[in-house]
Amino acid sequence: MESFAIKRYIELPLPNESDTRADRERILDAVGADTVQMTLRATQKLYPALQDAGYKITLTLCPGERGFDIVNVEAGDTTAALYGFALDVGSTTLQMALIDMNSGKTLCEHGASNSQRALGDDILTRIIAVKSDGTNLQKLQALVLGDIRALIQRCCADAGILPSQIAAMTIGGNTTMMHFLLGCDPWLVFQSPYAPVFYNPGIIPAWELGLDLNCNLFIMPAVANYLGGDITSGLLNTDIDTREDMAMFLDIGTNGELALGCKGMLLVGAGAAGPALEGAVSQSGMLSEPGAIDHVRIDENNVLHVETIGNLPPKGICGSGIIDLIAQGYLAGWINGNGTLNPEASDRIKLVWDDEKNKHIPAIEYAVGESGSLFFTQDDIHEYILCKAAAHTMVKTLMDASGITAADIGAFYLAGGFGTHYDLESAITVGLYPDLPRDKFVVLGNASLEGCKRLLLDRNCLNRLQTLLDSAVYVQFSEMDKFLENMVAAQFLPHTDAAMYPSVHTRVKP
Amino acid sequence: MESFAIKRYIELPLPNESDTRADRERILDAVGADTVQMTLRATQKLYPALQDAGYKITLTLCPGERGFDIVNVEAGDTTAALYGFALDVGSTTLQMALIDMNSGKTLCEHGASNSQRALGDDILTRIIAVKSDGTNLQKLQALVLGDIRALIQRCCADAGILPSQIAAMTIGGNTTMMHFLLGCDPWLVFQSPYAPVFYNPGIIPAWELGLDLNCNLFIMPAVANYLGGDITSGLLNTDIDTREDMAMFLDIGTNGELALGCKGMLLVGAGAAGPALEGAVSQSGMLSEPGAIDHVRIDENNVLHVETIGNLPPKGICGSGIIDLIAQGYLAGWINGNGTLNPEASDRIKLVWDDEKNKHIPAIEYAVGESGSLFFTQDDIHEYILCKAAAHTMVKTLMDASGITAADIGAFYLAGGFGTHYDLESAITVGLYPDLPRDKFVVLGNASLEGCKRLLLDRNCLNRLQTLLDSAVYVQFSEMDKFLENMVAAQFLPHTDAAMYPSVHTRVKP
Repeated sequence: MESFAIKRYIELPLPNESDTRADRERILDAVGADTVQMTLRATQKLYPALQDAGYKITLTLCPGERGFDIVNVEAGDTTAALYGFALDVGSTTLQMALIDMNSGKTLCEHGASNSQRALGDDILTRIIAVKSDGTNLQKLQALVLGDIRALIQRCCADAGILPSQIAAMTIGGNTTMMHFLLGCDPWLVFQSPYAPVFYNPGIIPAWELGLDLNCNLFIMPAVANYLGGDITSGLLNTDIDTREDMAMFLDIGTNGELALGCKGMLLVGAGAAGPALEGAVSQSGMLSEPGAIDHVRIDENNVLHVETIGNLPPKGICGSGIIDLIAQGYLAGWINGNGTLNPEASDRIKLVWDDEKNKHIPAIEYAVGESGSLFFTQDDIHEYILCKAAAHTMVKTLMDASGITAADIGAFYLAGGFGTHYDLESAITVGLYPDLPRDKFVVLGNASLEGCKRLLLDRNCLNRLQTLLDSAVYVQFSEMDKFLENMVAAQFLPHTDAAMYPSVHTRVKP
Repeated sequence: MESFAIKRYIELPLPNESDTRADRERILDAVGADTVQMTLRATQKLYPALQDAGYKITLTLCPGERGFDIVNVEAGDTTAALYGFALDVGSTTLQMALIDMNSGKTLCEHGASNSQRALGDDILTRIIAVKSDGTNLQKLQALVLGDIRALIQRCCADAGILPSQIAAMTIGGNTTMMHFLLGCDPWLVFQSPYAPVFYNPGIIPAWELGLDLNCNLFIMPAVANYLGGDITSGLLNTDIDTREDMAMFLDIGTNGELALGCKGMLLVGAGAAGPALEGAVSQSGMLSEPGAIDHVRIDENNVLHVETIGNLPPKGICGSGIIDLIAQGYLAGWINGNGTLNPEASDRIKLVWDDEKNKHIPAIEYAVGESGSLFFTQDDIHEYILCKAAAHTMVKTLMDASGITAADIGAFYLAGGFGTHYDLESAITVGLYPDLPRDKFVVLGNASLEGCKRLLLDRNCLNRLQTLLDSAVYVQFSEMDKFLENMVAAQFLPHTDAAMYPSVHTRVKP
């Protein structure tokens, strides 16, 4: 397995009267000028570096637009020190890992809030900010670059290495975030004719973005507008491109991105599920921050228990708490299959006043916080079921498109925060994931970041990426047969077709 | 003949539901992504440029490190506007020409004093300034880049075009000047082991040097330390690489660079002649500035006439005046063949006090300036003869090395200020140039700049440059047989071997 960037220690022939080749040519002759180029930054270091080092030097070679670029020249043998950055650029947070490309170890990892939130919490707000004032594009770029600079400093300080030693950086992010990073307007990511500026921007010298690193940046290529480099990067963590049987990859949240494939075949799709899946539902829904209820359980005595992040008094409920609440409520008989609350099932089901409807509606009083009771209403449940139905239907549609059923799926990869933090049983119970043997589920965590790490450690991932891009067939969900029909059928707990969820039905309170 | 940079007007297929390729990929697919890359600066312009232009655009393609780089994208058909800069970076002055690569016309041309002179008039002083304080390297780079920026603005303003429209820049300069331009330390250009940082630095994006142009810079490659890109550029103005008989190329000044060759063969050499050739001799020697005597004639009545630059009262004498003075003095019998002044030949030959020698020495009172008489002394003459002997011997040595005599030379190319401004007859009379039929001499002017222009108009010059580099054999003058012997033989007016200068001897006053 060869790392993305490599180092080569070479002992150059010393110049003499009959060999006065210049430093640059001396080095390129030694490594093969046909496939290797030298950056100006590296060239500028050659004198007096070569003299001082007795012409015994270590070259840092980072993949470039064509072949390799010599991005650094160091005295003596420094091959033991080979570092790279993996970076996931999310719209909410950035996550950076400093990787030792020799040992494969993650030396440190840090996250940061994406400062672009100053111009809008969600991506669409930022895109519109650019549309209304073109200078916001440069602002957004500068903001995220500032975050990246801070992360570079923090990681390097932590590991005790210099930014100048970094040999490569791999970056995953969705199509819009990569447009902002490179200073390109992403308007057409979301607008007709849906042909944005780039899917695959190539390899960019770090200093071209004003980052004081010697190396090049490799931006993970996107498959499509809504299937960005974060997803292709995520797929590197799976064996979807080599296995014989079928694997599903799902990164679900407000939007869902998914892939279904095996060796030689890859169906990909993306669509909106709804913010409810990430907690943006109900008056008391919230992000997974301290004080948020992230776990809910109804015990055998029909008593509801909650846990909060940081064990603080409950302020509201986040996505992983909501899915528990609905799953547990369904299993305990508080919620019917069609999502209707059953007030007789528990005295925690109360009537609350709905200003809009001008009447009382049923709601679960799932906790009592410092400012009073916290409710999850009948309407919240229905809204949530619409979202989970959308997610379910995307999965189902890809399966239909490839002519397989859930039983044919050999592995079900769960990427992102949803897959990591949300209870698997709850997600199956509400009918979001299919009812597969549990050992088929593989939690990937921050798959975009992990894929960036993988590429740093294995340059062959470049070929895998190309294979993924070449084989990917984009499925337009809205154009698929029975999409709406499937969606309607999924608006039930766990599903109108009970046979699809055998393991759930054995657990429903009789 | 294809220009260095080119433009291509293309009408792209419009994106639609079944073709949502990104702008960047859409363009690269259209032009062939194997040999063409797109710069980030060009990528950033794609939205909304493509939309606004209805996907009918003109690409500017500039040669890059590998194949072509798309350096600009413009709406509609702008192929009629194709501009490039040719630039000669001299240690004293810079000269820039703005070229219409379609018509071949020079739209305007401007010169500027090299601001690096603030750190030393001559190159060696600047090199030592860097040695004594490394930060001077960045200062020198910044100074010349400032000059270039000013020339860009001036040329563009003159021609009414925008710097962003420039499609290419070709740059000639000696090895040291190119090191300063790229921020590389040139110490080893002049010091053992004489292996500098680069001879051929490749192609550099303009903005990598902080120049606000979209295009790439092509730096003319050097053959050797003392045979820089200014010389290879100069050779492009000759047919030395294709002709059957031999041609000589000479750029003489304080230092001489020369080449002798024909199709398939090229001998090159360089050496010091001495500052006397450029006027740095005698108390009254000066640069060719207003008030300098630049032409001298002794008429048939033995009367000496002078002309000054700007027709001002004479302040001193510059190189072209000195060579006239010595040639005319020799022909008129004022100076003997061995350089001795003959006081009886003219009453303009006087005795002047020499503080160093503590005695009177003979001198020509060649003019009377506002501050008194201007003298050119016996010692000045001897010093000048040493310099012209060095120049002559370099030429002779290259001829000897290739086994030819002056009669075999089919063309004698004169590059630089010396060749342009110095009287050809005088240069032959003093024995600096060989005594060839006059029609064999070709004055090239600023050959470095002209070669840069040629490359802009004819990309095939890249192949010619490679041929020149591949075939060049560097002749170390000091190691050649009879070098000193030849040098001594040349210390005579015009030469100890009178047979070499038949046309001169017919003109000597009997």
